[in-house]
Amino acid sequence: MKASRHLIKDLLDGKTPAIARAITLIENEDPGAETLLEQVFAKTGNAHRIGITGPPGAGKSTLVAELAKLLRAKNKTVGIIAVDPTSPFTGGALLGDRIRMVDCFTDPDVFIRSMASRGGLGGLACATQDAVDILDAARKDYIIVETVGVGQEELDIVNVADTTIVVLYPEAGDGVQAMKAGLMEIADIFAVNKSDRDGADRLADEIRVMLTMGRRNPPEGGWAVPVIQATAIQGRGMDEIAGEIENHLGFLKGSKLLDSKRRNAANLRVRTIVESRLAADLWKSGRAHTHIDEHVNRILDRKETPHEAARKILEEFLGRPPDIDCPGKPDIITNE
Amino acid sequence: MKASRHLIKDLLDGKTPAIARAITLIENEDPGAETLLEQVFAKTGNAHRIGITGPPGAGKSTLVAELAKLLRAKNKTVGIIAVDPTSPFTGGALLGDRIRMVDCFTDPDVFIRSMASRGGLGGLACATQDAVDILDAARKDYIIVETVGVGQEELDIVNVADTTIVVLYPEAGDGVQAMKAGLMEIADIFAVNKSDRDGADRLADEIRVMLTMGRRNPPEGGWAVPVIQATAIQGRGMDEIAGEIENHLGFLKGSKLLDSKRRNAANLRVRTIVESRLAADLWKSGRAHTHIDEHVNRILDRKETPHEAARKILEEFLGRPPDIDCPGKPDIITNE
Repeated sequence: MKASRHLIKDLLDGKTPAIARAITLIENEDPGAETLLEQVFAKTGNAHRIGITGPPGAGKSTLVAELAKLLRAKNKTVGIIAVDPTSPFTGGALLGDRIRMVDCFTDPDVFIRSMASRGGLGGLACATQDAVDILDAARKDYIIVETVGVGQEELDIVNVADTTIVVLYPEAGDGVQAMKAGLMEIADIFAVNKSDRDGADRLADEIRVMLTMGRRNPPEGGWAVPVIQATAIQGRGMDEIAGEIENHLGFLKGSKLLDSKRRNAANLRVRTIVESRLAADLWKSGRAHTHIDEHVNRILDRKETPHEAARKILEEFLGRPPDIDCPGKPDIITNE
Repeated sequence: MKASRHLIKDLLDGKTPAIARAITLIENEDPGAETLLEQVFAKTGNAHRIGITGPPGAGKSTLVAELAKLLRAKNKTVGIIAVDPTSPFTGGALLGDRIRMVDCFTDPDVFIRSMASRGGLGGLACATQDAVDILDAARKDYIIVETVGVGQEELDIVNVADTTIVVLYPEAGDGVQAMKAGLMEIADIFAVNKSDRDGADRLADEIRVMLTMGRRNPPEGGWAVPVIQATAIQGRGMDEIAGEIENHLGFLKGSKLLDSKRRNAANLRVRTIVESRLAADLWKSGRAHTHIDEHVNRILDRKETPHEAARKILEEFLGRPPDIDCPGKPDIITNE
């Protein structure tokens, strides 16, 4: 299916119904979605992509809404993708503050879409990345991708965003402690939200200490990660956050890190698509599909280990023994 | 490398140094590990595998320690694998309460090991599952796998455990709300820990309501998920939890669900190993590896979409067009 000229024109003009339609094609895995993406891909690469992540309850949605208002006040266009974790059982997205967030907006120039992460390879689903490209082609100046959770998903956001903001809040306490180390490494900006509550100063100080311990703040000639106290629901601290977003983009451009960040992101994205398609091809080929139950029977009878079963299935698919004996995801390749 | 007879014998006798050595082989991806697993695999399948998960700060480690003490008092042997989320940047595990937990034990018959999850395909790393098999072969009556986090990892635990315990705590509040739906579906037993604090009764009630809404409690002839209030640090509620673990195993055996659970787990495990090895084979084959940078250049020049790049790489690897156009992880196959 070829995407209609009409749809493409409207999309490139930034018209909301066309954006919505394009993202629906992507979500439905409509064959037209890939064609559409091919036809508008040349127009992408101009938006500033901002990732916002943090534990549930940190007030990310409110912060995103306030940030969007601020950007709109400067006459910038904004697209928001809110990624919800998918339940692997129901297949549906877990609704959080989404409905509330959508309520915040009556501005038609802020496009908001909630998407399920699908728990696929590479975390942030392929569909989300395609949707970001659509928003980019639709001339959004800023694209905000919000993720919830503290898992791999959250860390994968760095592969989509030029600038990653980690939002924490005082009460998370012990919980935050456990996840901070991982977040420490992906944050370009820390926002301590709900800073009108007790413990905000202490949390901000702790983060600053951890940043120093990690020798990341500032690395020589590098970016000094700011820690900003905010109370998004009252609009406090939002100007500062918006300012640091601009500073960070300036830094990325000045240091040529923007190019290498996007290069790594493209590399990982291609690898993710290749791997998931390869897996799909294997299991749909019919042969492996038929035999896996026999292998499972042998495993349950303790006559074959899962590794032996895997080796046999692969050898059959490839028509040769696999090159690799040790399983495990290969490292991300960079060509810096 | 062939695993020494000595190591195998000691392992099957349940000797701690042999278990530790075997798990180290697995963690190091030593070629001997697979051979070892093949040689002891026939002796697995007897342990009751218990998964314990929940948000950070819920006191899971304390609860695991108390549960282990209880089981030991009944003269049962216990193995514990604590899975820590890996930082994708440092590659290391994020240490939480591990050190404290290890301190709890001076009992040499409780084997404790902390492992990194590595963020590989299928969540709970392949190595963790192999380690569970090792503990099983080493005649541990109970194997407890503890995971932290609220991501895919946590939900993947159902694929390892016969019985999954979800631990929550009152203060998690908003945060728990967001993750509860996913946890609701994997829990065989709910433990509301830190029940000496305010809000524990309310949380327990909320969970009971959600279980009813989800029509899971009880499905006809099914398992009625118990919600137990506990204060693990004082040992309160632990007898009840241990009792429900036994009840659940009895239910699984009586209903033949134990077999179908383990069948699904084996199926998913084989698929995970196959997919990660296939990906490793692809990237190590040299060809794709060489070309990906060229594709990335074309993507950055907006001359090729990531999907086009992926299609070309796959076609080259397979020597034919891939069967599947839509990426995405295929559904878990069950043969029930």
